[in-house]
Amino acid sequence: MANTLNTSFKRAQFDFSSVLGILGAFIFFLGFALISPLIIALIYGEAIWNTFLYSAAIAFVVGGALYYFFKTDRELRIREGFLVVSLTWLFLSLVGALPFVISGILPSYTDAVFETMSGLTTTGATIMGGTTSDGFHNPQIETLPKSILFWRSLAHWLGGMGIIVLSLAILPLLGVGGMQLFQAESPGPTADKLTPRVQETAKLLWGIYVAFTATEFLLLWLHPSMDWFDSINHAFATLATGGFSTKNSSIAAFDSVYVDVIIIIFMFLAGINFAMHFRLLKGDAESFFNNRETRFYSLITLVSIIVITLSLWFFDGYSIGSALRYGAFQAVAIITTTGFGTDNYEVWYSFGAFFLFLLFFTGGCAGSTGGGPKMIRWMIIIRNSYREVKQIVHPKAILPIRIGEKTVDPNIQRTVLSFFMLYIFVFGLGALIMASMGYGMDSAIGASIACLGNIGPGWGEFGPTDNFAQIPYVGKWVLILLMMIGRLEIFTVLLLFTPTFWKQ
Amino acid sequence: MANTLNTSFKRAQFDFSSVLGILGAFIFFLGFALISPLIIALIYGEAIWNTFLYSAAIAFVVGGALYYFFKTDRELRIREGFLVVSLTWLFLSLVGALPFVISGILPSYTDAVFETMSGLTTTGATIMGGTTSDGFHNPQIETLPKSILFWRSLAHWLGGMGIIVLSLAILPLLGVGGMQLFQAESPGPTADKLTPRVQETAKLLWGIYVAFTATEFLLLWLHPSMDWFDSINHAFATLATGGFSTKNSSIAAFDSVYVDVIIIIFMFLAGINFAMHFRLLKGDAESFFNNRETRFYSLITLVSIIVITLSLWFFDGYSIGSALRYGAFQAVAIITTTGFGTDNYEVWYSFGAFFLFLLFFTGGCAGSTGGGPKMIRWMIIIRNSYREVKQIVHPKAILPIRIGEKTVDPNIQRTVLSFFMLYIFVFGLGALIMASMGYGMDSAIGASIACLGNIGPGWGEFGPTDNFAQIPYVGKWVLILLMMIGRLEIFTVLLLFTPTFWKQ
Ligand SMILES: [K+]
Ligand SMILES: [K+]
Repeated sequence: MANTLNTSFKRAQFDFSSVLGILGAFIFFLGFALISPLIIALIYGEAIWNTFLYSAAIAFVVGGALYYFFKTDRELRIREGFLVVSLTWLFLSLVGALPFVISGILPSYTDAVFETMSGLTTTGATIMGGTTSDGFHNPQIETLPKSILFWRSLAHWLGGMGIIVLSLAILPLLGVGGMQLFQAESPGPTADKLTPRVQETAKLLWGIYVAFTATEFLLLWLHPSMDWFDSINHAFATLATGGFSTKNSSIAAFDSVYVDVIIIIFMFLAGINFAMHFRLLKGDAESFFNNRETRFYSLITLVSIIVITLSLWFFDGYSIGSALRYGAFQAVAIITTTGFGTDNYEVWYSFGAFFLFLLFFTGGCAGSTGGGPKMIRWMIIIRNSYREVKQIVHPKAILPIRIGEKTVDPNIQRTVLSFFMLYIFVFGLGALIMASMGYGMDSAIGASIACLGNIGPGWGEFGPTDNFAQIPYVGKWVLILLMMIGRLEIFTVLLLFTPTFWKQ
Repeated sequence: MANTLNTSFKRAQFDFSSVLGILGAFIFFLGFALISPLIIALIYGEAIWNTFLYSAAIAFVVGGALYYFFKTDRELRIREGFLVVSLTWLFLSLVGALPFVISGILPSYTDAVFETMSGLTTTGATIMGGTTSDGFHNPQIETLPKSILFWRSLAHWLGGMGIIVLSLAILPLLGVGGMQLFQAESPGPTADKLTPRVQETAKLLWGIYVAFTATEFLLLWLHPSMDWFDSINHAFATLATGGFSTKNSSIAAFDSVYVDVIIIIFMFLAGINFAMHFRLLKGDAESFFNNRETRFYSLITLVSIIVITLSLWFFDGYSIGSALRYGAFQAVAIITTTGFGTDNYEVWYSFGAFFLFLLFFTGGCAGSTGGGPKMIRWMIIIRNSYREVKQIVHPKAILPIRIGEKTVDPNIQRTVLSFFMLYIFVFGLGALIMASMGYGMDSAIGASIACLGNIGPGWGEFGPTDNFAQIPYVGKWVLILLMMIGRLEIFTVLLLFTPTFWKQ
């Protein structure tokens, strides 16, 4: 049977069967992941333990069958690689949504997929909680079973793992993404196909990711306001720059400077290229601190904290201490695209609020778990703008763009510029679709960038105290797509919508 | 004395004296322009006639003196050319503001410069009129002397003339602007310095501009709702894509389908490259209708009219006729960056409103009097985006960008991409500064794009029924700068803020 299918698929330009085989393997592994919330449910004696059992069983059967029938030894071609990457997030969301539906907590499959995609893309936009339930089916966070909360956080954590591998190993192979901009600076794989080397790199990077998560977990657990369950969930969501919380009011619920500081530090770390952490742990402090992107990221973070702190202190009447505490938290939460909250930035004085809004377009470093356009692209854009103006005075000069010692290839300059234009196109189109559903300018813009940038909270009706429950189904699917497009560095997903991709 | 000054200026890298000489000539000519409102004041027996006499006298004396002492026969170098272009709009605004101040109508010099710059840049953002006077000194349009109204409209018309020459003759020489993108398609000057050829071209293009203005004037005057004074003012403001009106409620005041249609047609014509009109009048209809930018512009306009009409009809309960009337007017007014109004788009259903908001970022054709990024740049951006995605599938292919038969040079592609990034930077920075003065997101964004795009009305507190009177002085100067930056195609002005420009 496998052979027959194989043959019929071959007629298409793609070897869909090997794509399906790989997706099957991923779904099968998702079955293992579903066992952890099952254990949590059993520990806490929650009635919905069987929800996870059924979901895991479905994942094992569907994933196993796909893998068994379609696995091949053939190497993936580049276009099949793009298909695998894009479909992985989609298929895992479709299957990972099952516990929400089976448990009846989110009876709408759309809502369940939204919540899962939001988890796996580390967006953290949620159907649940918020102060604006508006009569929609919208369970409050604190009433949810712990196993469901754990599943949301775990989706973040797995998504973050996926992104590290994707951005440091897979996308460079496919010629897309922020990291290929600095191939030479990155200790990632330079081989031109998936080799054991990639797997080894992945394991090392995951080791760091696990170690950071464990450290944050322990540091949070030390504090009396957090039990082990809160600690593990927030550690998952921090390292993934995810943003789902176990509390309706997010990190504000713990009302602790200690907790705020720990989470600020780990959000900041999660926004750094994990390859840099890897170097630092190998004792190469110099290249960590000399890395231009890390420095630029630190500078932007520092300046943003200062600006927002001053705005809160001067315009909003916060004490200087409170201004720093809340300013730093919100700045880092948005720059890193984590989206945790300790303060409602929508009621800030317009200057601080608008400054934060601009930070929605930054993102962390390439090779981090953060979303958004990322620092390296901004560095290239800024240098390019300056060069372009300079070029007018010296029309015939060849003016290279340098970052540190490295010259940025003209093709990469163009790709980065094009990335921003596509980013803005998709952002504008997303906002227009939200506007077509009756949302005003700030809400439409806010929902679009919150999802495209994998941030989570937005503006207007989708601010930090709101949720995404009220949106019509079509709108939710559009936002699901935006989360995917943003997470997979735009090109990867948009490619699938071009005829060229499907032509021989 | 001229020689002494000349020598001392020479010590600087620039020959400032020849720059001042040219600016002097422009200011001197502004003196002549100031005689027309003087005549209007005398015709209508307005007491402020002497205001224009004094202003003209100052222009003659200051301009004449500058010209006399600093004129040279030397050719301008390229950097001096940039300085002349940027300072022309500034100096003419500083002098053109005098009648507002001397007459006491806008006692604040800042307000007067804002109004004049808004006129000369064909922006049409105004201190006067509107329904939100908020207790500020804010004279209502209908109470103003006719001579003052005429001066506002004349500033538009002269600014429009200036832009046609600038975009079709001067900027291409300096290597900036939309037109150099299509040198080959344009019948403009290709010589590499200011020659009699440029003057000849300018005269021909002005001839068309005058003929169009005269035609619209006559067509408007035919209608009983408009007297000759309303007709001439609106003809001036239409051809310049300016937007100042003689009525507080803009074109809505005439409440005539005929007037709406005439103005729609002439706004649309004003948004086309005047070199194309020149060709058409020479009998070359083929190249007019085959011009890719004209076609793209027509397509965008048509699609926008249909979309907004349907939105007004479906969501806002307009009859289909009214929807078309108001939809077409507002769409064309914004695409061409004229900014006239017959309907308050801020109260439209969010879809139509947001769609119109996106049109704030279009602009007419290069070589028209319209502002904004312009159609040719969008065409290149769209083709580039598609190429960039295609490039991923064919990493090694060299994929050119073609518009019609022409291949777009890679340097021009990069310049266009950079233009958009700088446009967005300046737009964001402008909005941030407005936010620092307490304006919310929609107002801040609205004021910034209304001025940068030379449109006039914006959003929020600066919508079509509002005015710009309430803004603190610093904010007004920022907006004055934005109008200049937008009008002079970004690079021209930003260049002056770089150290490179001032270095040898
Ligand atoms: K997030
Ligand atoms: K205008």
